[in-house]
Amino acid sequence: MPTPLRLGIAGLGTVGIGTVKIVQHHAALLARRAGREIVVSAVSARNRTKNRDADISGYAWEDDPVALARREDVDVFVELMGGSNGPALAATKAAIETGKDVVTANKAMLAIHGQKLALAAEEHGRVIRFEAAVAGGIPVVKALTEGLAGNEIRRVMGVMNGTCNYILTRMESAGLPYAEVFEEARQLGYLEADPNLDVGGIDAGHKLSLLAAIAFGTKVAFDAVELEGIGRISIDDIRRAGDMGYKIKLLGVAQMTGRGLEQRMSPCLVPAESPLGQLQGGTNMVVLEGDSVGQIVLRGAGAGEGPTASAVMSDVIEIARGARISTFGQPAATLADPVPAKATAPAPHYLRMALSDKPGALAKVATVLGEEGISIDRMRQYHHADSTAPVLIVTHKTTRDAIDHALKRLPATGVVSGEPVAIRIETV
Amino acid sequence: MPTPLRLGIAGLGTVGIGTVKIVQHHAALLARRAGREIVVSAVSARNRTKNRDADISGYAWEDDPVALARREDVDVFVELMGGSNGPALAATKAAIETGKDVVTANKAMLAIHGQKLALAAEEHGRVIRFEAAVAGGIPVVKALTEGLAGNEIRRVMGVMNGTCNYILTRMESAGLPYAEVFEEARQLGYLEADPNLDVGGIDAGHKLSLLAAIAFGTKVAFDAVELEGIGRISIDDIRRAGDMGYKIKLLGVAQMTGRGLEQRMSPCLVPAESPLGQLQGGTNMVVLEGDSVGQIVLRGAGAGEGPTASAVMSDVIEIARGARISTFGQPAATLADPVPAKATAPAPHYLRMALSDKPGALAKVATVLGEEGISIDRMRQYHHADSTAPVLIVTHKTTRDAIDHALKRLPATGVVSGEPVAIRIETV
Repeated sequence: MPTPLRLGIAGLGTVGIGTVKIVQHHAALLARRAGREIVVSAVSARNRTKNRDADISGYAWEDDPVALARREDVDVFVELMGGSNGPALAATKAAIETGKDVVTANKAMLAIHGQKLALAAEEHGRVIRFEAAVAGGIPVVKALTEGLAGNEIRRVMGVMNGTCNYILTRMESAGLPYAEVFEEARQLGYLEADPNLDVGGIDAGHKLSLLAAIAFGTKVAFDAVELEGIGRISIDDIRRAGDMGYKIKLLGVAQMTGRGLEQRMSPCLVPAESPLGQLQGGTNMVVLEGDSVGQIVLRGAGAGEGPTASAVMSDVIEIARGARISTFGQPAATLADPVPAKATAPAPHYLRMALSDKPGALAKVATVLGEEGISIDRMRQYHHADSTAPVLIVTHKTTRDAIDHALKRLPATGVVSGEPVAIRIETV
Repeated sequence: MPTPLRLGIAGLGTVGIGTVKIVQHHAALLARRAGREIVVSAVSARNRTKNRDADISGYAWEDDPVALARREDVDVFVELMGGSNGPALAATKAAIETGKDVVTANKAMLAIHGQKLALAAEEHGRVIRFEAAVAGGIPVVKALTEGLAGNEIRRVMGVMNGTCNYILTRMESAGLPYAEVFEEARQLGYLEADPNLDVGGIDAGHKLSLLAAIAFGTKVAFDAVELEGIGRISIDDIRRAGDMGYKIKLLGVAQMTGRGLEQRMSPCLVPAESPLGQLQGGTNMVVLEGDSVGQIVLRGAGAGEGPTASAVMSDVIEIARGARISTFGQPAATLADPVPAKATAPAPHYLRMALSDKPGALAKVATVLGEEGISIDRMRQYHHADSTAPVLIVTHKTTRDAIDHALKRLPATGVVSGEPVAIRIETV
């Protein structure tokens, strides 16, 4: 049997300890599958004396992750610290420069420095693998890079932030407003230290930009992702959308069109009975569409110790088996500069507004929509106790531009109170 | 750039031609992703002059697939002929013996000769890859072999025969009896030449046995799969199960228990609102459960030109990239001899019977069930026009043995007419 593959693990939080546990508990299984033993040489974390859920006394300790990355007894540097810059980036660079392969769960670092790191790795003949960075335990990076490698990818979609999906489904099931469920999620420890990473769609946007790079052979372009968080979704929207047969999801969509690469991470309506519509709680789902394979749907836990460590280990085993796959599925130098395009493809939209209780009010709204070329598929006016009536409209396919024009003109009608809400309806 | 990877394709049916099309249409894309060109050197099929949907005039022709497999200008033998023995097996052996890697969609051949072929391949330093043999375009072989390689697998489940799922969902949606939908499927060309491969569960059983070998590190044991087809499922069962909140699926389940390896492919009830319950038409779904990752669900087209060719190409690209993965995820010599175990784990069951319209009839049935230790979760008796009443029972968890004993005793009560039906309810 060949020599063992030696890991240096930086970051001993949930995922780091989960990875250590798999190495310790499944040594024989891993050796059979990988064709060689997998061992941990050294570890690094902020706090050496913290009580941990695994025995790390047999491993060398480094206070400095860069020193860990440079160790001669490390073959694979496993970066589980997080953060787009700082120690994670410095240690990853050090690992590559000293001839180590890298396995990372760090979506933020790759979303921002992925191209540079991939080039550096290839220059040094090393690989960077990041299955754990996207959708936790779901092997979606491998599905796209390997399983669908024979396809021209048409579209990548996904619910890839479990916290947002938890908040949206919990608002619905408990009938609670956003602020209250947000606070609940914070107390449950579901939110990042900077909650905007979750509810602002940034974390999910990072993941989408990584999948888009693989799917379309383009350099990671996180800056070009149109981001919109879930903060403005009200319990009313969730209920009204439900009445019309839809669920609201923070949905990522990336597709290559004639105008360029569209990437958006934003609240969308999806049919309630679709696989995406039925996704509850913290579960993630990714939908991959290829020209030959059609639509593939993958579903599983998007976070947590076990699922994320499972993804880390899948990359470690891939490296142990001797596979050498480029970071984004093809040499970094062959990745094209994407032309970012605004998501202007027409889609049906959901509109909600409060209409004054005056004769002719609805006609005025309908007139504005008609003049902007927006035709109405379905409309509902609800019973109301006060002087304004909630009105829902599902439009036929129309552009976001037309919607925005119409929204801008509505106040002048004098019959709409408050700010109307418009949400895209995604065909899934 | 390294030398091109040269394919020899045996079998130019739907999948073979689909594979040729991908090679021809996506040459640049494949080369970027695989790191080298992928070309076809030679092809073989039964009929040279048949009109085909792709231009094969640039490839060498072999009448004999064994000769194709032996050609010096072939690096990878792509076996798309089908059939567990005969030319497919002979050519696969010839390919291995003459130093070729093999990509195959042939579940029957691998279910029966997989261990022998895997050993032979490893002896010659070659690989056999078979993504296309299981669940068409869904990259489930890779998900299990690579994506979940860090997990001890707990259970593998799946709806892996699209024709059976088409028949069952069509019976329900059109309200047609089995025989009629079966005939419809035959006329649509959905059925194998020997339809029992589909409706008898054999084809799906082949697939399950291959996944079980990877999942549990055991030699393929197709003979030990408990097989039961869908032929005895009536439209009544589908309707009644629906009333109780279930759908009927031809479901494969493989799990390792304390008693050994359980593998069964049989009609089961699953909750209507579960992902498996919602599966319509020819779509496939595989559920993988690992100790770290939890439950992963994969969904996609299980057959057809594009999806299956996509799977074939994923294996070709894997080989082109230089990955060398053992057929069943670990060296064939390390695969254990499985101890086949009957699926005796208790489960709830669905019972349907026709009860005579006599006082005390239900009591007699309930007494028999009680004496066999079977307790009733839910029961429904339907309105009836004739002298027998349809009765449905959902039991609490019980063994199949207890159910079988009870069924054997029921005729003696004199109140049950016809043959009662019992179907396992799977927890998904």
